[in-house]
Amino acid sequence: MPPNTIPRTARTALPSNPRDAATIDPWWDEFEVIVVGFGVAGGAAAIEAARAGARTLILERATRGGGATALSEGTIYFGGGTRVQKATGFEDTAENMLTHVRAAAGPTSDPEKVRLYCANSLEHFDFFCSIGVEFKDSYFAEKVIFPPTDDCLIFSGNEEAYPFCEESPPMPRGHKPMKEGSAGGYIIEQMISAVTDLGVTIQNESRVETLIRDGGGRIGGVIAIVSGKEVAIKATRGVILTTGGFIMNREMVRRYAPDLAKCKYPLGSEGCDGSGIRMGLGVGGAAINMHEGLMTTVFFPPISHIKGLIVNRQGQRFINEDCYHGRVTDAIMQKADGHAYLIVDDSIYGKTMLPFEIAGVEETIEELEKALDMPEGQLLHTFSSYNRFAEQGEDPVFHKAAKYVKPLLDPPYAALDLSAAKSVWAAFTLGGLDTRPTGEVLTVDGQVVEGLYAAGRASAGLTRSGRHYASGMSIGGSSFFGRLAGRTAAGASSRVSAQRAPGVSS
Amino acid sequence: MPPNTIPRTARTALPSNPRDAATIDPWWDEFEVIVVGFGVAGGAAAIEAARAGARTLILERATRGGGATALSEGTIYFGGGTRVQKATGFEDTAENMLTHVRAAAGPTSDPEKVRLYCANSLEHFDFFCSIGVEFKDSYFAEKVIFPPTDDCLIFSGNEEAYPFCEESPPMPRGHKPMKEGSAGGYIIEQMISAVTDLGVTIQNESRVETLIRDGGGRIGGVIAIVSGKEVAIKATRGVILTTGGFIMNREMVRRYAPDLAKCKYPLGSEGCDGSGIRMGLGVGGAAINMHEGLMTTVFFPPISHIKGLIVNRQGQRFINEDCYHGRVTDAIMQKADGHAYLIVDDSIYGKTMLPFEIAGVEETIEELEKALDMPEGQLLHTFSSYNRFAEQGEDPVFHKAAKYVKPLLDPPYAALDLSAAKSVWAAFTLGGLDTRPTGEVLTVDGQVVEGLYAAGRASAGLTRSGRHYASGMSIGGSSFFGRLAGRTAAGASSRVSAQRAPGVSS
Repeated sequence: MPPNTIPRTARTALPSNPRDAATIDPWWDEFEVIVVGFGVAGGAAAIEAARAGARTLILERATRGGGATALSEGTIYFGGGTRVQKATGFEDTAENMLTHVRAAAGPTSDPEKVRLYCANSLEHFDFFCSIGVEFKDSYFAEKVIFPPTDDCLIFSGNEEAYPFCEESPPMPRGHKPMKEGSAGGYIIEQMISAVTDLGVTIQNESRVETLIRDGGGRIGGVIAIVSGKEVAIKATRGVILTTGGFIMNREMVRRYAPDLAKCKYPLGSEGCDGSGIRMGLGVGGAAINMHEGLMTTVFFPPISHIKGLIVNRQGQRFINEDCYHGRVTDAIMQKADGHAYLIVDDSIYGKTMLPFEIAGVEETIEELEKALDMPEGQLLHTFSSYNRFAEQGEDPVFHKAAKYVKPLLDPPYAALDLSAAKSVWAAFTLGGLDTRPTGEVLTVDGQVVEGLYAAGRASAGLTRSGRHYASGMSIGGSSFFGRLAGRTAAGASSRVSAQRAPGVSS
Repeated sequence: MPPNTIPRTARTALPSNPRDAATIDPWWDEFEVIVVGFGVAGGAAAIEAARAGARTLILERATRGGGATALSEGTIYFGGGTRVQKATGFEDTAENMLTHVRAAAGPTSDPEKVRLYCANSLEHFDFFCSIGVEFKDSYFAEKVIFPPTDDCLIFSGNEEAYPFCEESPPMPRGHKPMKEGSAGGYIIEQMISAVTDLGVTIQNESRVETLIRDGGGRIGGVIAIVSGKEVAIKATRGVILTTGGFIMNREMVRRYAPDLAKCKYPLGSEGCDGSGIRMGLGVGGAAINMHEGLMTTVFFPPISHIKGLIVNRQGQRFINEDCYHGRVTDAIMQKADGHAYLIVDDSIYGKTMLPFEIAGVEETIEELEKALDMPEGQLLHTFSSYNRFAEQGEDPVFHKAAKYVKPLLDPPYAALDLSAAKSVWAAFTLGGLDTRPTGEVLTVDGQVVEGLYAAGRASAGLTRSGRHYASGMSIGGSSFFGRLAGRTAAGASSRVSAQRAPGVSS
């Protein structure tokens, strides 16, 4: 159908500029729920909105759904006794999961989001099964970023690392769908099938950068550029922004998240340019947690590297090396000003997936200390102290788990440069629109912006800090709260409070 | 004059809700420039607006002007060869100052704000003289938070500390007006006299929490609560928000600046509740740098304490102890997770201004290490290494200046607990509305919000980070950019670009 276009002169090119509904004539089309962006949050929102009976439209700027999820390995964080956990002998409980997710979501997380996520994890696992995502009943025992096989369960965060391991019994909760290697694209393909089966209208190659607001402040639709023409589409129940984060918008990163700007490799899809956050800000939504993100430099596999020592420019250790790679990287940024070396001996050195510059190779620690221009005696103390305790399999200073603790005594010794400036640091953002668990967007004063919802990385979601993060919490949280936003928007004539969110047990 | 009041039902109690200008009838009064908040930024803005010929109103919620400045010691950061610097033998230049302020404002600062501030520092010193603020031609040589006397010049930041001392010749630039002890109130009193002399209308006890916006998006006035009645006041040229930061708004601090939430003592006036930032957000202004602030725990004087060692729970040093106290405190938060001890020996221990818990007193470092529950040998290494180099007056690990380096050999040894949880940590915010140097408030997309200006802690100003901060940069930056906002608003029928800012050489 040829769209009725709005005159080009009326076009507002900046997402933070909403359009006045009174100026719209004609409306090109009308839906009950409009979802902007088809990543895992958008797909989940559309499925639930459609299941709740709402006439639903997805507008996706790319040629096909995907978003950052499609580019990811596809790990999803489930727990509390999933089918896979049970089949592989892990006796997780909702309480265990809650204890760890409280820590993993970070101290600034939303306790209600954390609680809902954990209380409904088994149901959320079933949701993915219901759309055809398959999980193998298998556990991949090695510490990896993700299983290279089609195996499912891994320890995907800090569960086994100090101090987390002392707070709750460590359980693996990273679930990768049954695909060899990366499975993010597979998740999205199952979602595309599901939304199609549900009769959701998918409009690809449709860029949305303008919200339509009525005189009362309610969001009632969007301006979309469809086939190069601007059209106005009405949403009678709600607009859900699932447009991703802003790591691809270097200016926003520089301004809001300066630490992330030091990471050379943005993790995300082209759409992660903050357009949804900017649209939300333009109608009074608040954006919070904007300085936070997940930063990572992947110094293992080989797993033997975890037995090495990560030191700052003063030759001091500052983190247990067996933490989640994002936590180690955060520590390098915050505690070592972005500069660190991984020191290995000949017995543990191995080939890394990504290249690291070798800052020095020497026969003795004294020589390496000198080669790295460290103050005299610092690295030597770190090594002699570490090795002395390691003879007993202990690390009383930073509490690396015993299985990674062994004296490093086999020269030569090498220093891999893990610095932000010299190695492959990747990052994505963890800040966005402030929302209720239902996805309702809030102003700085805590009021709901009527008719507007956000989920996924466009919102400040389940997990707020790379220092505590676990793989699977982004796809897990984005899909879970995407679903809740979809249901809420579909069921609401105006707004639904978190307390009355339909369909989610609490 | 009895105000014509707006019906109570029309009142919008939340700052992020603007009022539609079309609904205002009647207007109570009309000015060209309205300044909201009478701290140092508001006073400076009003003086310049009035000097430029604009009919100007200041609305202050307290019974008298003051703001955070009146509660402060009153140091102002000037340089480039002020009268006081010359008289006391310091040959500063604008270039030297620029090099240091670039570093001190922090890596996320606005280069144009930094440049303008340094290029016009002598003129800004003259501005304060022009309103009757007096400075004694004297230098207070000791490292202090501020001179207890009426002396003027001090090293008020990190100028003498590594690595800053290697980047530009250290110069003292903190100028305290000629008053014994704190001088912040004196500055404000001079400002009150100056604005009164200029015919500016000052309306105290007038709370402003609502901006008035016309259909085109331009800010055209404010709703103020004057004597308990809501009135609408028109601003034909501009509204300048100089309402302070948000450290008194615990909910905003928790949400936007979680590190600052760990500091028990907010530094500011009652008005520092973020009302101006919230008003700006409500009309599409962007707030940036919101997670940043100045945190400080004041472990000196006595100056001898700087000769002590600050260590984390692993017994490691992590910062040169002679940095500006805010930089040391930032390091405790970021690098030591908010937990640190100052270790002193008997020869340097002295009475602190604020109380610190003594975590341990022992005859040997080995015993102290044990008493503090530190891993064996860690504190001992730190001390033996430090003392060995200190014999030569050197600190090759963290580069404390030689004058503070001496072996610590006189038992007993004491550990003062500097932790955020156990000692007096004070804080204020450094995030706020994104502005041009002229004070024009910007949206997330970089557009000007017509008719709206911000300066002082309501904006993201000159200085962006406690890690690099110097005392005097808040009052200095707030007054300087307050002045620029006043001039710009007064001279502008709509908006004035940074390039055309009147009256400031560039």
